[in-house]
Amino acid sequence: MKIYRYEENPLIVPAQVPAYHEGFEVIGAFNAGIAKYGEEILMLLRVAERPVSEDPRVVKAPVYLPETGKLDLIEFNTDDERYDFSDPRVIRNKAQSGSFEYLTSLSYIRIARSRDGRRFTIDDAPFIYPSGPLETFGIEDPRVTQIGDTYYIYFSAVSPVGIGEALVSTTDFVTTRHHGMIFGPDNKDVLIFPEKIGGKYYALHRPTTKSTGNPEIWIAESDNLVYWGNHKHLLGLRPGRWDSGRIGGGAVPIRTEKGWLELYHGATPDHRYCMGAVLLDLNDPSKVIARSGHPIMEPEAPYEQNGFFGDVVFSCGALVEGDTIKMYYGVADTSMACAELSLREVLDSLEYV
Amino acid sequence: MKIYRYEENPLIVPAQVPAYHEGFEVIGAFNAGIAKYGEEILMLLRVAERPVSEDPRVVKAPVYLPETGKLDLIEFNTDDERYDFSDPRVIRNKAQSGSFEYLTSLSYIRIARSRDGRRFTIDDAPFIYPSGPLETFGIEDPRVTQIGDTYYIYFSAVSPVGIGEALVSTTDFVTTRHHGMIFGPDNKDVLIFPEKIGGKYYALHRPTTKSTGNPEIWIAESDNLVYWGNHKHLLGLRPGRWDSGRIGGGAVPIRTEKGWLELYHGATPDHRYCMGAVLLDLNDPSKVIARSGHPIMEPEAPYEQNGFFGDVVFSCGALVEGDTIKMYYGVADTSMACAELSLREVLDSLEYV
Repeated sequence: MKIYRYEENPLIVPAQVPAYHEGFEVIGAFNAGIAKYGEEILMLLRVAERPVSEDPRVVKAPVYLPETGKLDLIEFNTDDERYDFSDPRVIRNKAQSGSFEYLTSLSYIRIARSRDGRRFTIDDAPFIYPSGPLETFGIEDPRVTQIGDTYYIYFSAVSPVGIGEALVSTTDFVTTRHHGMIFGPDNKDVLIFPEKIGGKYYALHRPTTKSTGNPEIWIAESDNLVYWGNHKHLLGLRPGRWDSGRIGGGAVPIRTEKGWLELYHGATPDHRYCMGAVLLDLNDPSKVIARSGHPIMEPEAPYEQNGFFGDVVFSCGALVEGDTIKMYYGVADTSMACAELSLREVLDSLEYV
Repeated sequence: MKIYRYEENPLIVPAQVPAYHEGFEVIGAFNAGIAKYGEEILMLLRVAERPVSEDPRVVKAPVYLPETGKLDLIEFNTDDERYDFSDPRVIRNKAQSGSFEYLTSLSYIRIARSRDGRRFTIDDAPFIYPSGPLETFGIEDPRVTQIGDTYYIYFSAVSPVGIGEALVSTTDFVTTRHHGMIFGPDNKDVLIFPEKIGGKYYALHRPTTKSTGNPEIWIAESDNLVYWGNHKHLLGLRPGRWDSGRIGGGAVPIRTEKGWLELYHGATPDHRYCMGAVLLDLNDPSKVIARSGHPIMEPEAPYEQNGFFGDVVFSCGALVEGDTIKMYYGVADTSMACAELSLREVLDSLEYV
């Protein structure tokens, strides 16, 4: 697989992004949803801001307060034995079974704009900011599906009651309409198909289950993009391979002659995130036709291997021009990059099931 | 709170129910959804059947095979240190984080019929049986919402990929129409309101989250009962109280002058299940008005305290006649019982929030 990583990579790094919150630092500008709007390519960046701590023994957890619209800061001492600070992204309560009790940063969505897809300028203010009690720990990893003139933007909504997926729509990237949480917790990595198939909308989604099962890809259908049902399990983990630990949809599904091509991420149990692809039936996307035996992209460049959380390539959006896939992707939970792949080569690389 | 437990309790015990599968024993006939159909009161029993094991050191896990419609039996030796057999309901793989890898019984739905609500006769065959890959470990804890002439029956669908909620409808309790999984995993304890409110259908549901959060009650809306969205967190646990470990909807919400009355179950972390109530706004059921400070019913009778999984009262359906709530409920994950409560007394007992 030939991969052309842009010479400008990483295209956006946190140091370029002024913090929106006083007393905070931007530690991530990554996992952006991608849209073409007019003459511009828009990155809907996930910007993660962390409260600056003068004392390395003090960790501050930011929490959005829906009543006031302000942030509260909760302080933890790293000596506190009730908590586990080993994952820099989260604060875990050892007495509880969840994977976190607080996050160490708060994410929101901010737009970066470009004419050439390589040099971006970043808006001064957030575009979509947490709102309401289901987003008090932030909003993360947006994707954008354009249907007609409307852009549907959906993202993980994180709060103490779990992680679900919320939907917002816009026609101008200025005003937004909120449609509430479309997939209840725990769910993330939703990808809405860009057109109706057999009269129905479809979306990939990624529940995380506690009873049994693994973080795997499901598919659901809808008639209005807001209410979803007929959930089916679509794609599972593969023990021993690159996608043995967790998988989730990446870019918006791409319509090809051979089927719907989904660029998805897969991680090993030790959290090395690669990108691969799966091909779904054009007329019934709940049918898997083919799948990557090996990743189409692995974290190999220094900016992919080193960062806030290293060894991660994680695409939330791509553009297709002829045979070229311009895959934008977050690197190391820190920055944004872009690589070009041949659509034909990706399709040819798949193993038919 | 005055509670009138029927003299006939338990109304149905497993010994009354002939096993449907050869070589199996019925270990539970419990957690029944309730419907009035013509002159009859129907219990839609959850019947749990377990493969008979001649050797106490051998545990057999039944698995439905969608391809053939038959059951496969997977044998485990209780000496096998990779597995935890301490919970009689499940087989847990110690190397995995989930709460089970297999179940020790397989549940399906079978109808019991009565004219007086006390003496029931049990159908010979299942009414709703597992179908498809999302139900290979069985279907559990049905509820029934009547809207017009249609009865909507929904239940937990259990399989290796998680527990979700599936929907079936019927007008005659003979033929059924399957609508697929309406709430993806992990989710159970769905309760569909019996009428539209402000032009929308509503349902309570109970996600189980892995990231953070607790097993608590959410609410969603729909325009067709099959696709659901606008998920909101409704009701949380209360540390130190009877509903501190997990909660979930019980009976179909009851319309009263004061609001929608939901009889819900709450358990402590050590799995003692009681019934309580919550009152929701008539015009906006996402608003909580009042809630039981103490249980309206606790496991006190011997048949409630002792059984396959003791100390459990768990209602999946009730009938209301005037001021009388006839609350049918599963006891000790084993049998069915019924108790009458005064609607007014339940309402008067609630603490307004």
